[in-house]
Amino acid sequence: MIGIFDSGIGGLTVVRAVMDRLPGYDIVYFGDIARTPYGNKSPETVIEYSRQNTDFLIRQGAKIIVMACNTASSVATEALKESCSLPIFEVITPAVTHALSVTRKSIIGVIGTRATIESGIYEKKIKNKNPGASVFSAPCPLLVPLVEEGWLKRPETRMIVKKYLHPLKTRQIDTLILGCTHYPLLKPIIAHKIGRRVTVIDSSTTIADDIRSFLDASPDIDATLTKNSTAVFYVSDITKQFQKTAAAVIRQPIHLKTIRL
Amino acid sequence: MIGIFDSGIGGLTVVRAVMDRLPGYDIVYFGDIARTPYGNKSPETVIEYSRQNTDFLIRQGAKIIVMACNTASSVATEALKESCSLPIFEVITPAVTHALSVTRKSIIGVIGTRATIESGIYEKKIKNKNPGASVFSAPCPLLVPLVEEGWLKRPETRMIVKKYLHPLKTRQIDTLILGCTHYPLLKPIIAHKIGRRVTVIDSSTTIADDIRSFLDASPDIDATLTKNSTAVFYVSDITKQFQKTAAAVIRQPIHLKTIRL
Repeated sequence: MIGIFDSGIGGLTVVRAVMDRLPGYDIVYFGDIARTPYGNKSPETVIEYSRQNTDFLIRQGAKIIVMACNTASSVATEALKESCSLPIFEVITPAVTHALSVTRKSIIGVIGTRATIESGIYEKKIKNKNPGASVFSAPCPLLVPLVEEGWLKRPETRMIVKKYLHPLKTRQIDTLILGCTHYPLLKPIIAHKIGRRVTVIDSSTTIADDIRSFLDASPDIDATLTKNSTAVFYVSDITKQFQKTAAAVIRQPIHLKTIRL
Repeated sequence: MIGIFDSGIGGLTVVRAVMDRLPGYDIVYFGDIARTPYGNKSPETVIEYSRQNTDFLIRQGAKIIVMACNTASSVATEALKESCSLPIFEVITPAVTHALSVTRKSIIGVIGTRATIESGIYEKKIKNKNPGASVFSAPCPLLVPLVEEGWLKRPETRMIVKKYLHPLKTRQIDTLILGCTHYPLLKPIIAHKIGRRVTVIDSSTTIADDIRSFLDASPDIDATLTKNSTAVFYVSDITKQFQKTAAAVIRQPIHLKTIRL
């Protein structure tokens, strides 16, 4: 199975993208609701939680691991690759590659949680591949709670998005990376506020494309993945609000099982 | 020592109130930053975390336990009282008692996290003491992240507060209980938006008054509490934002020690 974990709801945008781009592949998901959000926790804590989540997915039969969380991808990728022998996918590199392929002026904006932005990971990866690129980042810590409340179209959300994007707009970016898997749910507002000249990169679809390419090139690993169109969703806690938002993101009825790690 | 715990920053308003009303008493605080917020987690999870926090405070020498968190107070008080022989204080009863003593029309509003409001605890306690009272409640889940971001005076915060308070305002409440220990930090905005005819009850000061009264009436327990004006602050995770907000709430420099439960 393809094992996918996130701190909560956001990773479901990655599940949806994987379902669309890898139809039929079995998926096991773990959403760490009991300890959400990761975005304002320290790197040590996020690494520890990511290890526990990965171990759980492996016990459920995962043969590849997808970190559907930008915060975990930012701070825990190296540590996980050291301690786990399975292929590990993270959301950041595919988004960076795609952004560099579409930018015209090489002026790229990045938005994410405080932990992701403070890690500087997007800037480092972009500059590694194109030292001449300019990168401007903005932490947007309130967008995750707004999404989790389902405030996807409210005027307050529009105001807050506008405020967060203002410093990037003045820098005349032509490409904007949504560096948090919650943000695709706000993509209409974000695209409107940043302006139609800016290409918005959704890291949930770029990671799904990346997994597709990897499996096409690695038939032996592809053969270890079962394809019965099943998806199993585990969460470390369950609330009505999560169930409501989850069904809306996946766009089909889902059954959540609770497990305490 | 007086042991105080909270899911994060909010409980520091209780520490501040205890310092003001019980000057000299030693305090040990635990803020569960690694697992914050409690307000959107299930009752089972909040009870489990509250037990762990209490055990930790007892190991540090706490002789009375203060749950400086409305969510924990709402769902975990009974469970904690069963498993712990020390005096346990919760924020809800003192706020209810005070609200009933000041209301003129017995029409009381309550705001809190989703978990606190869904528990119905304020309404139950108010109606137990005054069956004729009317209680109107509103969950305000975005106020905790706004406070944790330090957005205490921003126009977006004012808009969101206004939206949340609107249904209570139309009910013509004359008393409003701030049913979350984060909310005292937004008291100026809340008091302005709800209107000057409404008395705003701050549960961080009413619990401190309650502890004061209990200790005055229980000299043998009072004698077990040391009084060297020390305050020790433990957190399960540490971030720059927390340090900044903590110093502003306590209004004196504080040293935070990290401990993983």
